[in-house]
Amino acid sequence: MAHYSRLSKIVIDVPAADHDRELAFWSAAAGQPLTRFDAHPEYHGAPLHGTESGLLIQRLGDGPGRVHLDIHTDDLAAEVARLEKLGAERVQQVHSWWILRDPAGLLFCVIPEPVGSLNDSNAQRWG
Amino acid sequence: MAHYSRLSKIVIDVPAADHDRELAFWSAAAGQPLTRFDAHPEYHGAPLHGTESGLLIQRLGDGPGRVHLDIHTDDLAAEVARLEKLGAERVQQVHSWWILRDPAGLLFCVIPEPVGSLNDSNAQRWG
Repeated sequence: MAHYSRLSKIVIDVPAADHDRELAFWSAAAGQPLTRFDAHPEYHGAPLHGTESGLLIQRLGDGPGRVHLDIHTDDLAAEVARLEKLGAERVQQVHSWWILRDPAGLLFCVIPEPVGSLNDSNAQRWG
Repeated sequence: MAHYSRLSKIVIDVPAADHDRELAFWSAAAGQPLTRFDAHPEYHGAPLHGTESGLLIQRLGDGPGRVHLDIHTDDLAAEVARLEKLGAERVQQVHSWWILRDPAGLLFCVIPEPVGSLNDSNAQRWG
């Protein structure tokens, strides 16, 4: 079965002490109010101007600030398996998504989307 | 005078030792061959599927791997001044662009684009 994926979100991970200033800064810098996600209140986000991509700010419990990427897919198991074959390693499943490590050691996430939301016009088809 | 800007590029900065594996991985992960920039051969890049945004891989001379964001603008001085007022700090000018530090200490870049390339349909208008 074919599945789809796309690089979909830029996530700025911020220590709690810097969170509110960082959220205000990037909301104003991007010109988009970043609103809190009800289901995951540690995240604020907004679409980016003229794209289907989005910017997220995540409040961290601990650890240093960083930026990471989210790949969205309509088949989580198939996409994680595809990325593992390319050289990524599974780190941890969190909620409905997977954290992976790329060949240079950088973390990124693979996030499931409903079947039907990704297609040839907005994502890459595999298989 | 009004000017425009947008969050335009995701840049994966990679130590030289990991560069080739990282470049191969993200080209395959995104399904887009990342091609070398003639003017700045330390960068490879490609547009992201269905967007005006792009993914870049930068080969680092030193320092740890990380991900950073690029804001593109048609008025570099006005955009850097706007971002400084919001709480960013100038770090260094490199080639034609500026490296800034956001309120949480993360680095990002502001890149000049030709006047006329950004407009109400693909960017945010300021002023």
